[in-house]
Amino acid sequence: MAYELFYWPSIQGRGEFVRLALEEAGEDYEDVARGPGGVDALMAALKEGPTPSFAPPFLRSEGMTIGQTAAILIYLGERHGLAPQDMAGRLWTHQLQLTIADLVGEAHDTHHPVGNSLYYEDQQEEARRRAGDFTAARIPKFFSYFGHVLGDKDYLLGAEITYADLSLFQTIEGLAYAFPQATGRALAQHPNLAALRQRVAERPRIAAYLSSTRRIPFNEEGIFRRYPELDS
Amino acid sequence: MAYELFYWPSIQGRGEFVRLALEEAGEDYEDVARGPGGVDALMAALKEGPTPSFAPPFLRSEGMTIGQTAAILIYLGERHGLAPQDMAGRLWTHQLQLTIADLVGEAHDTHHPVGNSLYYEDQQEEARRRAGDFTAARIPKFFSYFGHVLGDKDYLLGAEITYADLSLFQTIEGLAYAFPQATGRALAQHPNLAALRQRVAERPRIAAYLSSTRRIPFNEEGIFRRYPELDS
Repeated sequence: MAYELFYWPSIQGRGEFVRLALEEAGEDYEDVARGPGGVDALMAALKEGPTPSFAPPFLRSEGMTIGQTAAILIYLGERHGLAPQDMAGRLWTHQLQLTIADLVGEAHDTHHPVGNSLYYEDQQEEARRRAGDFTAARIPKFFSYFGHVLGDKDYLLGAEITYADLSLFQTIEGLAYAFPQATGRALAQHPNLAALRQRVAERPRIAAYLSSTRRIPFNEEGIFRRYPELDS
Repeated sequence: MAYELFYWPSIQGRGEFVRLALEEAGEDYEDVARGPGGVDALMAALKEGPTPSFAPPFLRSEGMTIGQTAAILIYLGERHGLAPQDMAGRLWTHQLQLTIADLVGEAHDTHHPVGNSLYYEDQQEEARRRAGDFTAARIPKFFSYFGHVLGDKDYLLGAEITYADLSLFQTIEGLAYAFPQATGRALAQHPNLAALRQRVAERPRIAAYLSSTRRIPFNEEGIFRRYPELDS
């Protein structure tokens, strides 16, 4: 296998942004922790070697081990034409990715505002307050930004898809799963984002992936969790 | 001026990571919002042009406008030798930067666990819970990681400084300001990180910057805030 991806085996999580890039590129990869003994292999690999990761996901390729989702996407973007080659285009794609990552981080924190070391059930009241702000103010603000950037183009940068489009697709999917009401309202305000979501979902390799068993369903262990009490 | 930096004029914030890279590189730059009418210029520039930013900081250079701290640092790193030139070294530096950014984000959220739209005073109870987890578990875990990566080298990648070292320095400074007790304990466990902090502070251009009026003092409007009730 050209690529070994290390990520938690039962959630989409941040690993999904890497999976989508590999799938769109049509690359074979081993999703290591989903194989037998895989989580042990993940934990052993995490701190190994000269470039250890603070947390999954990380990717092995060409003798390198690359951690941090956005850094992995720089690498895959350059190798597989999922970002422009010129400096300005590379930076702009990455800027968009990092802004998407900010939105994803905020989505995560709606159910874990106090910290990851506690269960959701132990921070439910705080979660309700944070999710109220997120659905009322933050989703609309981020969608307004990305809707403005997209305009009437097919993809964020123009005619060609980049890893930022794949990541924005995944984020909209996740938000629509976790916050169907709030996300439905925001998409109705930004039909171009709804169209982008559809356009990415219909790309042949992405469509094949989404209907395969490689795509882990959304669930209440991942970043995007459907807790109806947090959606409004 | 070769560079125009756009960031809030009264805090270090995320702009400080860019300022430190520009200072270490010995580059002239205009800190636009700190001049007359500067905040208006910042707000006007925020959404302008083909690569608008979701939020400050952003940097103008060579006709480009680059947003997102970590993307700006990729650019400055390549231009001014603050990162290796080869792919593996570039990615590793960036991976470290993104992990530092995760720590910075968590430090911020200690005083704003419910959301940025509310004042600290309106989320003080939640802040206390989140800061307890942050000081007891997260600072030690991040310091353990960076201490392991640094080992007995002068800088994170070896003999040469990169933008990741500047960012780690700034983060330790900020944590020591906001959480002197918790950070003091963590630094005592990782004397190599304390030595790195010192080593960066003593670099001639950084030392000159830190003692200049260009360095905005830490305060309770920024990312790192000294609220004694959150430190333990």
